[in-house]
Amino acid sequence: MLIVQKFGGSSVVCPERIKNVAKRVAKSSEENQLVVVVSALGDTTDNLIELAHQITDLPSPREMDMLISVGEQISAALLSMALHQEGKKAISLSASQVQILTDSVHTKARIQEIGTKRIEEELAKGNIVIVTGFQGITEDKDITTLGRGGSDLTAIALASVLKASNCEIYTDVEGVFTADPRVVPSAKKIERLTFDEMLEMASLGAGVMQTRAVELAKKYGVTFHVRSSLTETSGTIICEEVNNMEKLLVSGITMDPNEAKITVVGLSDQPGIAGKVFSCLAENGINVDMIIQSSAGEKRKNISFTVAKDDLRKALSGIETLRSQIEIGSVVSDENMAKVSVVGVGMMSQPGVAAKMFSALADKGINIDMISTSEIKISCVIERAKMEEAAEALHSAFGLDKE
Amino acid sequence: MLIVQKFGGSSVVCPERIKNVAKRVAKSSEENQLVVVVSALGDTTDNLIELAHQITDLPSPREMDMLISVGEQISAALLSMALHQEGKKAISLSASQVQILTDSVHTKARIQEIGTKRIEEELAKGNIVIVTGFQGITEDKDITTLGRGGSDLTAIALASVLKASNCEIYTDVEGVFTADPRVVPSAKKIERLTFDEMLEMASLGAGVMQTRAVELAKKYGVTFHVRSSLTETSGTIICEEVNNMEKLLVSGITMDPNEAKITVVGLSDQPGIAGKVFSCLAENGINVDMIIQSSAGEKRKNISFTVAKDDLRKALSGIETLRSQIEIGSVVSDENMAKVSVVGVGMMSQPGVAAKMFSALADKGINIDMISTSEIKISCVIERAKMEEAAEALHSAFGLDKE
Repeated sequence: MLIVQKFGGSSVVCPERIKNVAKRVAKSSEENQLVVVVSALGDTTDNLIELAHQITDLPSPREMDMLISVGEQISAALLSMALHQEGKKAISLSASQVQILTDSVHTKARIQEIGTKRIEEELAKGNIVIVTGFQGITEDKDITTLGRGGSDLTAIALASVLKASNCEIYTDVEGVFTADPRVVPSAKKIERLTFDEMLEMASLGAGVMQTRAVELAKKYGVTFHVRSSLTETSGTIICEEVNNMEKLLVSGITMDPNEAKITVVGLSDQPGIAGKVFSCLAENGINVDMIIQSSAGEKRKNISFTVAKDDLRKALSGIETLRSQIEIGSVVSDENMAKVSVVGVGMMSQPGVAAKMFSALADKGINIDMISTSEIKISCVIERAKMEEAAEALHSAFGLDKE
Repeated sequence: MLIVQKFGGSSVVCPERIKNVAKRVAKSSEENQLVVVVSALGDTTDNLIELAHQITDLPSPREMDMLISVGEQISAALLSMALHQEGKKAISLSASQVQILTDSVHTKARIQEIGTKRIEEELAKGNIVIVTGFQGITEDKDITTLGRGGSDLTAIALASVLKASNCEIYTDVEGVFTADPRVVPSAKKIERLTFDEMLEMASLGAGVMQTRAVELAKKYGVTFHVRSSLTETSGTIICEEVNNMEKLLVSGITMDPNEAKITVVGLSDQPGIAGKVFSCLAENGINVDMIIQSSAGEKRKNISFTVAKDDLRKALSGIETLRSQIEIGSVVSDENMAKVSVVGVGMMSQPGVAAKMFSALADKGINIDMISTSEIKISCVIERAKMEEAAEALHSAFGLDKE
C-alpha cells in the first residue's frame, strides 16, 4: 500500500521530535510505501518573515517565497537523515525536484500539476520519499508557496495524483473534536466526518486543517485521516459520506474569536450599492464572512458584515475611499466579536436545530448579534467575552458531551 | 560594463550588513550591469551542520547539500529585498534557476556547465541578478555544494561564462597582504599578484580565497579584484602577469598553523610501498601536503609527511589498516606543527632566496623540520609555537615591511 503522511511544524519542532517522527515513519514503512510531506520546523517560517521585515516593510512576494521556502527544505533533509539513522532508505525532494507546478501568484499559489515520475522512481528504488510541503514552482522555475497551512494541500494533492491508499495528516491534536477541548472539557473526538462537515469545521476556526486542502480532498475524493503524531490512537477520518444511523445531527461546535463587525449606516437604497461596497473590499484582498442588510428608513439602508479582526483596519480605510463614489452615512465597527457555530450534515432538514441553538444561548443571557446559516451549519456572532460560555452551553444542549 | 561581485558571509552577517551591501551594489548598478554572488549569512551554514549532527553522526552527503544550500537562498532573497528597498530592480536566482550544473560528488561538487540564458534575460529586463553562491545541481536536479568557500568559485565561473569585464571578490579584509596583519603588524597590502602567486598564497593558508576558485580563474584567465566590503579603497588585483620591474622577488609570507606530521618508520625498501601508503590515505579522502623520504638503514626506510591537523586521526587509523598488507615499524605523529612559506614569482631562478630564508629562521633559533619547494614558493615546517615569530622574521628579512 502507498500511504501519504503529512507532519506539521509542531511534529518537527526540534531534532528530538524529528527523530520521533522518523521512528514512526520507519515503522509504517515496514508494511507500506511511503511519501512523507513535511512542514517547516516550528517557527522557522515566522523567523524568516521577521528577518525580511528587518530589511523592508514591503518585501516582494517573489523574494518572500524564495526566502520562506527554505523552511521545508531544512525539515525534509533532516527527516531524511533521521530515517537513514533508523536504517531506512530515504530521500528528500523539493517542489522543484518533484515538479509541483503552480500558477505564479506568489505567497498563495495554486497547484496546477504534479509530476509523479521522480517520486515513483525513488519509491521503486525502495526509498521513503520526503517531500517539502507548502511550496511549488512556476513554469519559469520560480519558487512559490501555497499559503499558510499549505503543506496539507501538498499532502492531499500528492495522495490524489499518486492514487495513494491512505492519506494521514499528523498533527498535535488527536483528531477533530466536537468542540475545542481547551474550552469545552467534555468535548469528544469525532470518529468520522464528511468533507462538507470538515470544510465547515475548518472554515469556522476548528484550526486543524487548511480549508483549501479539504476542498481539494472533496474535489478529488481523497479520504484522509487526521491524527496525532504523539500517540497511536486513531483520529478522525474525513470522507465522502458517513453511513451511521446513530450519528448525531450535530457533529460539533466551532468557535472563532477573531471576528470584527462593521456596519455601514445610511447607504442609499439603490441597486448596485452593496456591490460597490463588497467589490471594494475584495479589491483590498479582504474576505467578508457574514453579511446582513436591513432598512433603516425609507431611502436609506444599513449593511453589517464581519471580517477577520486583522483585516478590520484595512477594511475601514477601504470603505473611506468609497465616499467619493457613493453616499455613506457613518461607519461603525466593533472588533470584540466572536462566532460560534453548530455543524452537522442534514441538520437543516431537521426542524428545531436553530430553535434549540438560540434558546440555549438565550438561557445563558447571551445576545445574538448576527445569524447565518448554510446546509450544514448555523453560525451566531456574539460578543467575544461570552464565546467560551456559549460553546459549552451549545455542546451540552446538543448532547455532544454524552458517549 | 558587466561586473560580477561576490559578497562573503561576513559581508551579509545580519540585516544591517545586508542593507549596507545593497547600498554599495545599488551605487555600482548605476553605471554597470551587475551579477551579485552571495554566501550564506554569517554562521548559518555552521548552525545547519550542527542541526544535522543532532540527528546523526554521519549525515548523508546528498541530504547535507539539500540542507546547507538553504543558507545562500536566504541571503540572496534578503539582498534582493534590500535592493528593492533602495529603489532598484533585482531578482534572486538559485543554482537550479540559473542552471549551474555540477557532477554529483555531494559536498564538493565540480561545476560542469553554467546556463547564461536566465541571467541574460533578467539583466535585459534591467534587473540586478543575485545568484546563490556555493551550490549547483546535478543532471537529476539534486542539489550539490562546491565545498567551503565555494561562492568564490561560483563568482569566477560566472564571470568567465558571462564574459564579465570585472570580477570583484568582497571580503572583510582590504586585500591580500604580505603576511597576516594580525601576526605581522608591518604587513603591507599587495597591489597586484599573479594567479600562481595567489594560488600559493591561498593553498598556503592566506585564507582569503578558495584555491579551486583561483585555479579556475587562472584556467580561464579571469582577472579578479579582492577588496573590502567596508571601505572604498582598492584591494589586490590578481591577474595573469604582473609587469613591474620594481616588484619584489618575494610577494608575501604565509602561514598555516594546522599541520600535523606523521612519520612511518621501518618500511621495507621496495618499489610500490610508498604508493600503497599514499593510496590508502587518498582512499580515506586525506590530502597529504609535504612528503619526505629517508633511509633509516639498509632495507628499511622512513616516510614523513604532513596532513591537516583535523585529518590526523583518520590518517593514523588508515595506516593501521595497512599492517595486514605491508610491514610497518612504528608510526610517530606530532600534531603541533605549522608551516611558514615565502611566495614569489621567479623566486627560484634567483639564487639566495632559500639561503636567506633558512638563515633568518636559524637566527631566531627556529628548527626546520621539513622543507618543500616549488617554482614560486619555499615552505618550512616548524613547531607551531614559533610560527608567529618565524613569519615576522621572514617578513622583515625579505624587506616586505618597507614601502
